[in-house]
Amino acid sequence: MLDAKLVSKSHSAHQTVVRLSEQVAIGGQDVVVIGGPCAVESLAQMEQVAATLSTSSVHALRGGVYKPRTSPYSFQGLGVEGLKVLAEVRDRYHLPVITEVMSIAQIEPVAAYADMLQIGSRNMQNFELLKALGTVHKPILLKRGLSATIEEFVMAAEYVMAHGNPNVVLCERGIRSFDNYTRNVLDLGAVVALRQITHLPVIVDPSHAAGKRELIPDLARAAIACGADGLIIECHPVPDQSVSDARQALSLEDMVDLVSSLQPVAAAVGRRLVKQEVGEALIAA
Amino acid sequence: MLDAKLVSKSHSAHQTVVRLSEQVAIGGQDVVVIGGPCAVESLAQMEQVAATLSTSSVHALRGGVYKPRTSPYSFQGLGVEGLKVLAEVRDRYHLPVITEVMSIAQIEPVAAYADMLQIGSRNMQNFELLKALGTVHKPILLKRGLSATIEEFVMAAEYVMAHGNPNVVLCERGIRSFDNYTRNVLDLGAVVALRQITHLPVIVDPSHAAGKRELIPDLARAAIACGADGLIIECHPVPDQSVSDARQALSLEDMVDLVSSLQPVAAAVGRRLVKQEVGEALIAA
Amino acid sequence: MLDAKLVSKSHSAHQTVVRLSEQVAIGGQDVVVIGGPCAVESLAQMEQVAATLSTSSVHALRGGVYKPRTSPYSFQGLGVEGLKVLAEVRDRYHLPVITEVMSIAQIEPVAAYADMLQIGSRNMQNFELLKALGTVHKPILLKRGLSATIEEFVMAAEYVMAHGNPNVVLCERGIRSFDNYTRNVLDLGAVVALRQITHLPVIVDPSHAAGKRELIPDLARAAIACGADGLIIECHPVPDQSVSDARQALSLEDMVDLVSSLQPVAAAVGRRLVKQEVGEALIAA
Amino acid sequence: MLDAKLVSKSHSAHQTVVRLSEQVAIGGQDVVVIGGPCAVESLAQMEQVAATLSTSSVHALRGGVYKPRTSPYSFQGLGVEGLKVLAEVRDRYHLPVITEVMSIAQIEPVAAYADMLQIGSRNMQNFELLKALGTVHKPILLKRGLSATIEEFVMAAEYVMAHGNPNVVLCERGIRSFDNYTRNVLDLGAVVALRQITHLPVIVDPSHAAGKRELIPDLARAAIACGADGLIIECHPVPDQSVSDARQALSLEDMVDLVSSLQPVAAAVGRRLVKQEVGEALIAA
Repeated sequence: MLDAKLVSKSHSAHQTVVRLSEQVAIGGQDVVVIGGPCAVESLAQMEQVAATLSTSSVHALRGGVYKPRTSPYSFQGLGVEGLKVLAEVRDRYHLPVITEVMSIAQIEPVAAYADMLQIGSRNMQNFELLKALGTVHKPILLKRGLSATIEEFVMAAEYVMAHGNPNVVLCERGIRSFDNYTRNVLDLGAVVALRQITHLPVIVDPSHAAGKRELIPDLARAAIACGADGLIIECHPVPDQSVSDARQALSLEDMVDLVSSLQPVAAAVGRRLVKQEVGEALIAA
Repeated sequence: MLDAKLVSKSHSAHQTVVRLSEQVAIGGQDVVVIGGPCAVESLAQMEQVAATLSTSSVHALRGGVYKPRTSPYSFQGLGVEGLKVLAEVRDRYHLPVITEVMSIAQIEPVAAYADMLQIGSRNMQNFELLKALGTVHKPILLKRGLSATIEEFVMAAEYVMAHGNPNVVLCERGIRSFDNYTRNVLDLGAVVALRQITHLPVIVDPSHAAGKRELIPDLARAAIACGADGLIIECHPVPDQSVSDARQALSLEDMVDLVSSLQPVAAAVGRRLVKQEVGEALIAA
Repeated sequence: MLDAKLVSKSHSAHQTVVRLSEQVAIGGQDVVVIGGPCAVESLAQMEQVAATLSTSSVHALRGGVYKPRTSPYSFQGLGVEGLKVLAEVRDRYHLPVITEVMSIAQIEPVAAYADMLQIGSRNMQNFELLKALGTVHKPILLKRGLSATIEEFVMAAEYVMAHGNPNVVLCERGIRSFDNYTRNVLDLGAVVALRQITHLPVIVDPSHAAGKRELIPDLARAAIACGADGLIIECHPVPDQSVSDARQALSLEDMVDLVSSLQPVAAAVGRRLVKQEVGEALIAA
Repeated sequence: MLDAKLVSKSHSAHQTVVRLSEQVAIGGQDVVVIGGPCAVESLAQMEQVAATLSTSSVHALRGGVYKPRTSPYSFQGLGVEGLKVLAEVRDRYHLPVITEVMSIAQIEPVAAYADMLQIGSRNMQNFELLKALGTVHKPILLKRGLSATIEEFVMAAEYVMAHGNPNVVLCERGIRSFDNYTRNVLDLGAVVALRQITHLPVIVDPSHAAGKRELIPDLARAAIACGADGLIIECHPVPDQSVSDARQALSLEDMVDLVSSLQPVAAAVGRRLVKQEVGEALIAA
């Protein structure tokens, strides 16, 4: 990986810590959990999600407002209306919010409302979008492409950094395989490798990897055990009524239970998973 | 493939024929060959390519001016300067030109100069770009994603059509596999399937599939034999000096030889491969 | 491929021709077609197959008597009874017969009845079986493993040759991919590569690659166009009643039609596809 | 998975526990670690391995004496001489030994010396071998094929059970992907799924998955965190001098360190990893 300059461990002696808010940062000793639905559907839905998750060790909210859908006839997201929902919930519950941008034109509105901008798997090598996000003053969550090699993934982050934005978090979310029992194959070997190759934080999305909710808790625990800096997990007040990816959404109760179960695993590998307020003090220390 | 409406055979009784110029159309009885370098490097280079290919049964020129490169430090293309080169060569040699667009902002300049706009593999599910190309009055060459399923490929074309542009040509260019002896695996089964599922023309890019020039002629002949409506093949005046993809570029002489060898194969499956002038008369008939 | 000694082009100046009978040989100028059902079901079935195919340019019969099945509860083949059926049909119709061996213990009975022994995809790296087949005085049809690299495939042939049997025919039959629209992905790039790397004949099985009968004829023509030395295709008197792989079996009529359509394609690439009697004279010449 | 009868959870209300010796069993509350070199090279080598590992929480030894090698010219294993080495070391250090069988003929000698018989990835669908192992009175370690689906893997175990042997342990060891940074992709989603589908123990081989020793410890911890019943890990007194798979062998010191680090992870998910003597008492309890 000769061309991996800015992202590589040899470039930066320290581990990058990407800050989402005063209280939340990814890449330090504390493991971070991001939760929320596949798509923002309504203020009531997001209120319910935030109210429940804010009582647990969940540190940030996710929710798509611009949705990359295989079919042009599927729900494409609430757009700006959804961004306003995210901002309102963020302000009320003090949880930073993350949402996806699919085009250069969406960067300005999303950056105005969200705390972190996600590049989805299908856009991992949308190089013009990567360049444009290099000029944004918000952190970037870069998801691995459906069949991107580790080298291509790292070089996509290099694009963002080379254009000026050093705050990139990598996200492994499963790769394509020959077996359709799981939606994708979670590649934790890539997580381990990325943490050795780069100084950027690496988080894991077990929801899109598994595609089946009953597989997610065990995979989430495995991700923490192998050194991931955090998790992004889909959950919904009524999973079966989710407008998209219903099969992989956890109920809010299952999400809270899962997060609790992560704490001893984090401790077993020398990390911590704590509620935001405690986290704030420690990160500041 | 329930959502495949506009692209599906059941929607349109006739086979779509996509016209690139008065003389050249893809999807009719005549097999079409598109040739040219990976990247437009200079006017002299493109002159040499066009001068040689225009003596053979090559019907259109390709050449990238906006290049999707894994590394941000690799040559990114000549941009508008390259578009002017393409237009100049097109006017002199009467060969329509095809080049890739990587973002919505590039659509306007590319559409002003080129006869067909290519969506590259890495942007096959760049849905905002697909939507924007739906409003363009130029034909679209849609390349299959690196690991796109046939359904996803068809649905990407549906995006363009649903947004108003019926002139879409599909291009199989190899998919990712576990074996790196070839760069990708040319999936001719997909070509056969696509021609049964859709009414859109389907062409084949054996260059990116093989990644090694010595494999290309046999694969090109196979593509015609299985029913492809055309080929897009990389060639260069001095292949080893190509700024990108040098290993898979044919010399111009080898390209001319290959095109000659395609004629009996086309005839063997009830198609024709002819020089443009002859083609013109026939298409008009 | 440093260890590929006996199989490599540098080892043998000439192209290997593997003889199945006095009349039939694979690897010469004549393209060879092998046809028959997935499994031998009865003498009546095989009689019907042979009677029809022997009127066309089909040169050999296939039919499994030991069947590798994913489930232990599926039909496992007729065994020795099936071998006797194959031998009886062979003697009556003068078509050599090919069938699979799944273990060392099956080699002796199969070699006693069949003209060529097939190693199936699942046993491509059953090294003890490969070694044992190296000592057999019958030609071997070696099918590529489900996800074998080209190098592993070539080295499996090297095992057979290194143990004494030079008469190996390689068979590409599709590899695993992420897309389940086709059963496997036919890798014709591997066919082209194998013919450049080795001096062994290479044939193609479009039936297992496609898994859907409507895709097979176009893929068979593509295989011949890219230089394959032959084809092995599944067909059945009543495809929908086939005890296995029913979805990919051609009817006997469709098989005869397909074989006819191959002749001009073979001619287009400098090969011939002829009936056995004519073939005999030419091979001898 | 309709045909998965004997292996499925619905068939057996309890979790199967497979006993390797009086002291060691796989599938209970205690996590089991199997360690040793890729190949048995000498008595001195195995003595050194056993002497070191027996001081840690390693419960069984592995070491190949019949080696499936891609090339017929690579070291093929010590055969019966190696079996005697394994038995001698087993008796001296009271660690059960596991080794691979590659053919039916090897079953008798291997079963005479070893405590568990391994079916390697390349033989996962060697159905005649599976059937023969169904009649053996020793437990079976069944490794997942290079690109076997979960269903195919489960059905391979069904073959062994249907032929009479209920003592089967499944082993995930990585599957083939498009990325060659790691040797294979460790599919922990399959481990989670297998534990939900079947009542058989499931262990993980991070060595063959990663192919690089620096990735192994993190993956081993992830495997325990997601619920695996054990691990099989390659280690060698002088890794760089290993006759095979040198790049993935841990030093004995690193192996001991790794095993220590697993204990808190096991505890975090309600399992235990203990030395054999303690384990004996608990299993008996």
